[in-house]
Amino acid sequence: MSDHTDVFIDFLCPYAWRGVELAAVLRDQGETFRLRHFALVEGNHAQNQKTHTWSLADQPLDAPDGEGYMAYQTPSLRSFLAATAAARQGEEAAWAFALALFRAHHEEKKPLDDQTIAAAAQTAGLDQGRFAQDRHDEAALRDALRAEQDAAREIGVFGTPTFVLPGGEAAYYRFENLTRDPATAREWWNLYTTVLRSDPGVATIKRARNRPAKRVA
Amino acid sequence: MSDHTDVFIDFLCPYAWRGVELAAVLRDQGETFRLRHFALVEGNHAQNQKTHTWSLADQPLDAPDGEGYMAYQTPSLRSFLAATAAARQGEEAAWAFALALFRAHHEEKKPLDDQTIAAAAQTAGLDQGRFAQDRHDEAALRDALRAEQDAAREIGVFGTPTFVLPGGEAAYYRFENLTRDPATAREWWNLYTTVLRSDPGVATIKRARNRPAKRVA
Repeated sequence: MSDHTDVFIDFLCPYAWRGVELAAVLRDQGETFRLRHFALVEGNHAQNQKTHTWSLADQPLDAPDGEGYMAYQTPSLRSFLAATAAARQGEEAAWAFALALFRAHHEEKKPLDDQTIAAAAQTAGLDQGRFAQDRHDEAALRDALRAEQDAAREIGVFGTPTFVLPGGEAAYYRFENLTRDPATAREWWNLYTTVLRSDPGVATIKRARNRPAKRVA
Repeated sequence: MSDHTDVFIDFLCPYAWRGVELAAVLRDQGETFRLRHFALVEGNHAQNQKTHTWSLADQPLDAPDGEGYMAYQTPSLRSFLAATAAARQGEEAAWAFALALFRAHHEEKKPLDDQTIAAAAQTAGLDQGRFAQDRHDEAALRDALRAEQDAAREIGVFGTPTFVLPGGEAAYYRFENLTRDPATAREWWNLYTTVLRSDPGVATIKRARNRPAKRVA
């Protein structure tokens, strides 16, 4: 039994963004979360449906962003490696960078390119020289990404955000709205953990129809 | 706002079975549920992915059960039409027949054929002569099935069981275990309705890994 909750994220994913905002609020209330990486482009890759043969960590970083599926591959790899480099400056740096990058991409609609990453590093207050140096340690960053994908596969992560509670209960948790309100975040988290820890072993609750999304302050 | 909860079921589906068992326990506690039909073979049909062009209600009832996908089509159609015929004997008859057929198929592992349907009608205490006569009113039964599929599509049902609460909240609810215990059923139902009615607008909670299934008494 660990003492923290893992949260698997993908910077491409708007639901992961909401999950990280929620976790950030809960961290202020004393909950301990650890950021983990799960690449949707790898999890959903056609070559990984039966056995796992395709790894994002093996792909080139200088490939053009391309169209369709390829529009996501390089931005995804770039983000994960940058976030891993940022995390070398400590837990708070990792969170600050993740939040800054998520907000730049999903709130300000910026692409996940080097410029956006540099701006996020500024916003997060990273040591820029060290960040640049760490980003060049590419082989080690790729190894870290590979290890994260292995861990996620072991757990059976299929989407983001997936939270893994200290007791091992693990589930994808998607909510329709974003909140940064402490009381709301607490309520949503209590509801989620109650469901996950409940005796029924709820396997899935999934809405049949969408309600209009609304932003909660 | 209606005064009851709809539960969409497919006799092929073991999760729908658990849902109906749960609803049956809650009916004894005064909750009002209405049985509705959603055919998974229609919802998942390749010809219905973009627009809806294939209806189970249009398929022959005397087709061989076949293999693969076709192994489900005729048993599905047969069960829905029989259940609709049974429901003509009233609400209690509908529930008794549905429970008997679900248990025969999922607990006793019997195929959804005419013999199993006849046995379920006996178990449910149906008027056998009337049941036989109503099953022959095939065109009307098919119309009823067609109307159910239209209603389910309107709501966005994609799996069974899907519960539609009196306030209109609708979600697929899958739990890992079966319960017939009144207190347990009440707890599971409270949890589900709390999630569905919660402000966060939880869209999805889905476990990443399965816990060992256990049967609750």
